[in-house]
Amino acid sequence: MFIVLEGIEGSGKSTQARLLAERLEAAGRTVILTREPGGTQVGEEIRRALLHGGDDVPARTELLLMLAARAAFVDGIVSPALARGAVVISDRYEMSTFAYQGYGRGLSLDEVRQINDFATGGLRPDATVVLDLDVAEGEARRLAAGRTADRIERAGAGFHRKVAEAYRLLGRSEPGAALVHGSGAPEDVHASILRVLGDRFPETFGATKG
Amino acid sequence: MFIVLEGIEGSGKSTQARLLAERLEAAGRTVILTREPGGTQVGEEIRRALLHGGDDVPARTELLLMLAARAAFVDGIVSPALARGAVVISDRYEMSTFAYQGYGRGLSLDEVRQINDFATGGLRPDATVVLDLDVAEGEARRLAAGRTADRIERAGAGFHRKVAEAYRLLGRSEPGAALVHGSGAPEDVHASILRVLGDRFPETFGATKG
Repeated sequence: MFIVLEGIEGSGKSTQARLLAERLEAAGRTVILTREPGGTQVGEEIRRALLHGGDDVPARTELLLMLAARAAFVDGIVSPALARGAVVISDRYEMSTFAYQGYGRGLSLDEVRQINDFATGGLRPDATVVLDLDVAEGEARRLAAGRTADRIERAGAGFHRKVAEAYRLLGRSEPGAALVHGSGAPEDVHASILRVLGDRFPETFGATKG
Repeated sequence: MFIVLEGIEGSGKSTQARLLAERLEAAGRTVILTREPGGTQVGEEIRRALLHGGDDVPARTELLLMLAARAAFVDGIVSPALARGAVVISDRYEMSTFAYQGYGRGLSLDEVRQINDFATGGLRPDATVVLDLDVAEGEARRLAAGRTADRIERAGAGFHRKVAEAYRLLGRSEPGAALVHGSGAPEDVHASILRVLGDRFPETFGATKG
């Protein structure tokens, strides 16, 4: 089973991914908790290229770099873990690309999806939980945590509003996706996520309810 | 005008690109002599990722990295130079990807072409000169020049035979391509290239004949 947490910066993805992993581990499942590039050597090199490639990186280059890292992530991390029977929980996957490079950068969504399918070899998540949060609240959380903004995060308020809106749309319309309010306390958001996943996958999440 | 030199390692591409550039400059043309990644900052970072990304880089990742660098090369180097009216001569472009990642690595050529078109925004060369050389002769030239092999060059004899065969096929079949024997003395190969280009573009290359 492959579960993805999505949402804007500060929406609580990594906290919720961790809580979900702990819950499943407590229930005796083997869990791989990861995020792209997930520790692949080439993925780390690509991450560096993305963050330090200068300010005139074309949107097409940004997309292709993201997808190059994703292909290595799928082959090196996700597929081997799924083959071993583990539950894979990832902080971000393909919906990030649809939201940031498709809606945010304005690249053709058809082409983004097509090249993404090439990169993933067609590996889709079983569930994608989208944490819905206002851009201002996400930014406030980032500042409170003392994190500096990277190149993509510095892209401006208009860009980030487009991304947040895209997440709302995709969370409601993508197969396997669910939109969950991300503004509450972490334990309340966690309970909402368990309800959504428990309805869909009672064998895995039903027993972990309440 | 955008002219590309292609062929296996050791086939003489860079020498012939330089001779061609000198000839055109002597005839009063403004020439940009380049090769991917052509000095773009993100391209250099990508080059590093390609060469130092470890030995388990999936072919899909390799392809997407090449194309990420190409998008930056087109936007940062080739298109601005063409817009200024310069002749651009490049040591390698899209045919390298068809030969190495398509035929060599065995990726679907349709998908490779499709994603390449996305990366280039559809910018095709006006002419692609393919220097035909046996793999053994290319390898002997590389050793004689004292160059060490990079990750792709170390891919093995079977891979390189496939690439050389692909170049022969593509040099005969691609629109705008011409296959030229690369085994002679540099000045003889240069004369062959000028004949081919002079027939096609007499205004640019006709006056530089003989």
